[in-house]
Amino acid sequence: MAGSTFGTVFQISTWGESHGKGIGVVIDGCPSGIPLTEADIQKELDRRRPGQNRYTTARAENDQVEILSGVFDGITTGTPISLLVRNQDQRSRDYGSIAELYRPGHADHGYDEKYGIRDYRGGGRSSGRETIGRVAAGAVAQKLLKELGISVKAYVSSIGPVAIDRDAIDFSFIEESPVRMPDPAASERALAWLEDCIRSQDSSGGAVECIVEKLPAGLGEPCFDKLDANLAKALMSIGAVKAVEIGDGTAVRYAKGSENNDTYQESEDGIPYKASNHSGGILGGISDGSPLFLRCSFKPTPSIAQPQSMLGKDGKCHVETIHGRHDPIIVARAVPVVEAMTAITLADHLLLAMTSQMAYVKKIWGVTFTAQL
Amino acid sequence: MAGSTFGTVFQISTWGESHGKGIGVVIDGCPSGIPLTEADIQKELDRRRPGQNRYTTARAENDQVEILSGVFDGITTGTPISLLVRNQDQRSRDYGSIAELYRPGHADHGYDEKYGIRDYRGGGRSSGRETIGRVAAGAVAQKLLKELGISVKAYVSSIGPVAIDRDAIDFSFIEESPVRMPDPAASERALAWLEDCIRSQDSSGGAVECIVEKLPAGLGEPCFDKLDANLAKALMSIGAVKAVEIGDGTAVRYAKGSENNDTYQESEDGIPYKASNHSGGILGGISDGSPLFLRCSFKPTPSIAQPQSMLGKDGKCHVETIHGRHDPIIVARAVPVVEAMTAITLADHLLLAMTSQMAYVKKIWGVTFTAQL
Amino acid sequence: MAGSTFGTVFQISTWGESHGKGIGVVIDGCPSGIPLTEADIQKELDRRRPGQNRYTTARAENDQVEILSGVFDGITTGTPISLLVRNQDQRSRDYGSIAELYRPGHADHGYDEKYGIRDYRGGGRSSGRETIGRVAAGAVAQKLLKELGISVKAYVSSIGPVAIDRDAIDFSFIEESPVRMPDPAASERALAWLEDCIRSQDSSGGAVECIVEKLPAGLGEPCFDKLDANLAKALMSIGAVKAVEIGDGTAVRYAKGSENNDTYQESEDGIPYKASNHSGGILGGISDGSPLFLRCSFKPTPSIAQPQSMLGKDGKCHVETIHGRHDPIIVARAVPVVEAMTAITLADHLLLAMTSQMAYVKKIWGVTFTAQL
Amino acid sequence: MAGSTFGTVFQISTWGESHGKGIGVVIDGCPSGIPLTEADIQKELDRRRPGQNRYTTARAENDQVEILSGVFDGITTGTPISLLVRNQDQRSRDYGSIAELYRPGHADHGYDEKYGIRDYRGGGRSSGRETIGRVAAGAVAQKLLKELGISVKAYVSSIGPVAIDRDAIDFSFIEESPVRMPDPAASERALAWLEDCIRSQDSSGGAVECIVEKLPAGLGEPCFDKLDANLAKALMSIGAVKAVEIGDGTAVRYAKGSENNDTYQESEDGIPYKASNHSGGILGGISDGSPLFLRCSFKPTPSIAQPQSMLGKDGKCHVETIHGRHDPIIVARAVPVVEAMTAITLADHLLLAMTSQMAYVKKIWGVTFTAQL
Repeated sequence: MAGSTFGTVFQISTWGESHGKGIGVVIDGCPSGIPLTEADIQKELDRRRPGQNRYTTARAENDQVEILSGVFDGITTGTPISLLVRNQDQRSRDYGSIAELYRPGHADHGYDEKYGIRDYRGGGRSSGRETIGRVAAGAVAQKLLKELGISVKAYVSSIGPVAIDRDAIDFSFIEESPVRMPDPAASERALAWLEDCIRSQDSSGGAVECIVEKLPAGLGEPCFDKLDANLAKALMSIGAVKAVEIGDGTAVRYAKGSENNDTYQESEDGIPYKASNHSGGILGGISDGSPLFLRCSFKPTPSIAQPQSMLGKDGKCHVETIHGRHDPIIVARAVPVVEAMTAITLADHLLLAMTSQMAYVKKIWGVTFTAQL
Repeated sequence: MAGSTFGTVFQISTWGESHGKGIGVVIDGCPSGIPLTEADIQKELDRRRPGQNRYTTARAENDQVEILSGVFDGITTGTPISLLVRNQDQRSRDYGSIAELYRPGHADHGYDEKYGIRDYRGGGRSSGRETIGRVAAGAVAQKLLKELGISVKAYVSSIGPVAIDRDAIDFSFIEESPVRMPDPAASERALAWLEDCIRSQDSSGGAVECIVEKLPAGLGEPCFDKLDANLAKALMSIGAVKAVEIGDGTAVRYAKGSENNDTYQESEDGIPYKASNHSGGILGGISDGSPLFLRCSFKPTPSIAQPQSMLGKDGKCHVETIHGRHDPIIVARAVPVVEAMTAITLADHLLLAMTSQMAYVKKIWGVTFTAQL
Repeated sequence: MAGSTFGTVFQISTWGESHGKGIGVVIDGCPSGIPLTEADIQKELDRRRPGQNRYTTARAENDQVEILSGVFDGITTGTPISLLVRNQDQRSRDYGSIAELYRPGHADHGYDEKYGIRDYRGGGRSSGRETIGRVAAGAVAQKLLKELGISVKAYVSSIGPVAIDRDAIDFSFIEESPVRMPDPAASERALAWLEDCIRSQDSSGGAVECIVEKLPAGLGEPCFDKLDANLAKALMSIGAVKAVEIGDGTAVRYAKGSENNDTYQESEDGIPYKASNHSGGILGGISDGSPLFLRCSFKPTPSIAQPQSMLGKDGKCHVETIHGRHDPIIVARAVPVVEAMTAITLADHLLLAMTSQMAYVKKIWGVTFTAQL
Repeated sequence: MAGSTFGTVFQISTWGESHGKGIGVVIDGCPSGIPLTEADIQKELDRRRPGQNRYTTARAENDQVEILSGVFDGITTGTPISLLVRNQDQRSRDYGSIAELYRPGHADHGYDEKYGIRDYRGGGRSSGRETIGRVAAGAVAQKLLKELGISVKAYVSSIGPVAIDRDAIDFSFIEESPVRMPDPAASERALAWLEDCIRSQDSSGGAVECIVEKLPAGLGEPCFDKLDANLAKALMSIGAVKAVEIGDGTAVRYAKGSENNDTYQESEDGIPYKASNHSGGILGGISDGSPLFLRCSFKPTPSIAQPQSMLGKDGKCHVETIHGRHDPIIVARAVPVVEAMTAITLADHLLLAMTSQMAYVKKIWGVTFTAQL
């Protein structure tokens, strides 16, 4: 079944395997009139690229994007935007026993169960390289959001036992930190923890948080395309994410109503405001005008250099070691992916919500109505 | 925008407001040939009905379902199944100041921002009564799953500070417990905690877990309609849910790869099995043949009997008390809702995955191919 | 598979069988703020009702609509609008041999082939009564169009050998004519032709044309959701329609480019206009600002009182007569159905096209942007 | 709005402009296990390529397809299949006044009205080159159909005043005829007619018919995704198509029920069969087991070398001549496009209909059900 398309009005379709010809995405439904260059997209792709430091894989990936359609004279035309990133390394080489084995924690077995065939080279479609399409499309969504003054910012909030200190957050440090933590001290401790993981041929889980500011109230389409529901889908669809939280997230189960309700207060000037933001900016599935706040928990990279007991296509178990260099942690590289999926979902909802009221419909068609030809 | 439809092949569309004429759902895409009676659906509706004990609202709701279409001689025909539950209480009455106020923690303000108009009677479309459509459709999905031997069971795992003891779980106790906890001792403690909440005119959050057994491997449509992604959407769309976790959920961020990977082992008879289920039955977005395990965190009921500072349509804050009887906890009544949304998502994925392989296509069309007329 | 939903933003889902409990439709995505009463819908349902004269069936159908949701104080709220029409005649009665026979020209055999079961009472889901849901939803779409000054008008252009004279068209006569022909003389001849058909226990085909005025240019979403493509689907989905034509329709295959091109001319006042409308108001799948013009060809009612050779479930042929009173012609009653499907498609496209340009997006979100709470 | 995606389960998304970097399509939902090579696709692209004779444009187009994903070792894997055709001629050149003028019969004006910007080079997205994506995807759909023994064959049935003689049809002549007519004598006359058109700097309309054999009964999803409804959309979405007919098409409006009903008869061996096929293989929106028959009417190429009065962006009319070589007829090149859209629609419906019956669901999941891991 077609499952590689996301969104209703701002709609993306990704394709591509890790060691095939390339990876790409078609963005359909992007409004016309938005300035867009390959540099806008390349900037985000470079942020997800591995090999930036020793905590990410040493594979040489030099992912150059090409805009194939939908942009004319540097401006989106409203037609589908096709983006292509060629894979560099498509050499035929020895994939050893990987074709015959199902790695623990990976989708190998599921793909063979589902499709009866699997492009096992580098994980095929279930590779982390699949996120290239998401990040490229996210860069386009970000351009749309910027036109409305909306900002989307993600960062790593925890790695293994190391969490950021909320009183020490410095967002300007995110891109300074090799692990994208907005807290220099926590970043240091996380690096030490990752050294331990590398030494013990292991990997570590972590969490990414995302904040969206200047989001208008009124986004979200109850009862199923609620804003939080679609964000949950968008984020849970990222490989390795096992939990999505909005606002206070799992902590709400310990809270009382009197604590969790965000009461309204008036400022000295008589302007009403929410005195707290336990809701994370969404109530009843609709944005409430406060900043959006969400968190994704990523499982540790399943590819570790220790020998593990794996299932074989022969139905037997085999203790084997997965060769190659792997990320001991993926949350740092996942930051632009979380931003991308958030931005794509918001772009879609901004367009979806344009049809909520007849007053809006008249605002468009009353003005653009041309003389009958 | 149309947001009241969920699913691709097994597709539900709900409608209805709390104090309108009724609540209902249209289920389109349910295969023909499944036995279905009103009693099958009524049984589940009765489980979500309030007024069962003092921990749920005392409102008299007597929700009787009527099958309007799609069933002939007690068997589904493959055409849309329309289900209707008339609202009992549509008396015009005094809604007091609620029309002019936005309650904290509620969708009131969002609806007015989005639509410019709101059916404020009893919460309108954002009322908990909206889940009647979900539960009714879920009962139909459950019938489909039962035909394949798949079982879906949810229960309350925690209420406020009280959590079940995993070593003391007794699933046969779920419906015995007034709060649907599968642990008699925890259930007792939770009741005491709720007494405290009631006394202090407050409410409590909690969590619902769900286990699905006998689910075949191979369900899920990467990269966006992954099984966990669609479950996350389905569950986050339930009012009051603020977090969705699959398998180990948020705990994965503290784990190492060597701990989180579910390695394969061989039984004494040489049958391979997963030695653990940290994945919760889903790897790479595809079911892996293990039991599915998920958890939803519900925020405390926002309607509490304490005076709170609310935003008025006049742009001013007003300290008011919300009258009426309200649930101090919603997780107990949410159990059948979580089961319903899980069952609906699984029914859809079972149908979606039927087209994965050309071998499956031939299995259907090779057999049913009739002579050319 | 779910096939009973039509539209993307303005989305309708119909349900119901001829002799089940009722027929209905859920309209999701209708903008808030449109005045809507049951009378608005009843008016259109009365136009499709049979028994108005001897050329339509004598069955007593008294189809009363009930608005179950989505309207508050006479105004649409933006939530799903559920409409219900109870079937009057659900008596269990003798359906004779119809359960065992597949009538020529009917969907009986197809339903049994597809679903393995069929509600054979009165045609079940394939009955003409299914159009009640379309007409009811169309009435809502018409209300939306009227807010923008767009009018949709259909009429019968031919019945058997009798066609209207285009120089004699009088639209004010449509509802005067028992066969909804806007040409009194042709209407008379058509009635005589239908008398012949009744006498010979036969039925007649015919055509319905539809004109839409004041439609803005710019509607249609290439390359697949073009305006003409979606209209073609909408209209071909009406039972008995075997051809859909836009503008000059099938005549274009005989035309030369110099004849078919609608050249632009300037009026005396220097206002440009299309000197002709061979395009029927759509070029390249996008409305061009001229009136929309389309035509549907309806096959003759397959239910005729003559004995016919039918296929039995026993695999044998049986010569039988279909009892009951049947319409010798359906085009007259199909007029409101064609209007409804046209209006629904246009309402959807008016909403779809609101997101075409970033300038439109800013027009909505720039104005409604509220202060951050 | 996203309008460049077609299909529900077998889903295609096309992109690309005439003079941009290239044209392509992503096919999502194609089952795994189908042999597929670039040659399979190239063969069909070569059939739609211009420059084959003097009746098609002399432009040098050498459209080479590249499979970028979804195929491994020559077999589809079930993941998205991305196909790319690079445009050869992207030289910046003088587009003269075309950027400032709206050509009669073209989408130029509609695109500017809709999007406020238009890639005017060679028609941009509204160019006939857009059909490359359709034909490439259609080649994949054809491979799927062939696995089930279903054949799709289209041909030109008329060009201007010249129609094929139905008693003289010779399908083996289709590819012999420069205008793809299956009647040598008609083909000759059509060529003479086209010479006339060329001499008078004009173009001609025509019709394409399509026959599908060995299609199983039971395809089509009432009441909106009926097989004929989705075919009508698929075909009307092809540029220049102004009418779609199924079976007897527009002729049904002149027919009586006794003539139009396809009665069932028994062969000498007692096998039932339809004695005629006025229905064109579809009854009630569901395939009836007879051959599918449909017809599309194409308007004459709007690009003609005569001076015409055109609308300018300046709001004035200008008499100008469109330069460049253009097809005097497009139906010959449209034959593979009609086959493609028909095949894509049928592939989708074959997959959609797999979920109609619980018996089918059990057939798949009863067999593939693996041991719980």
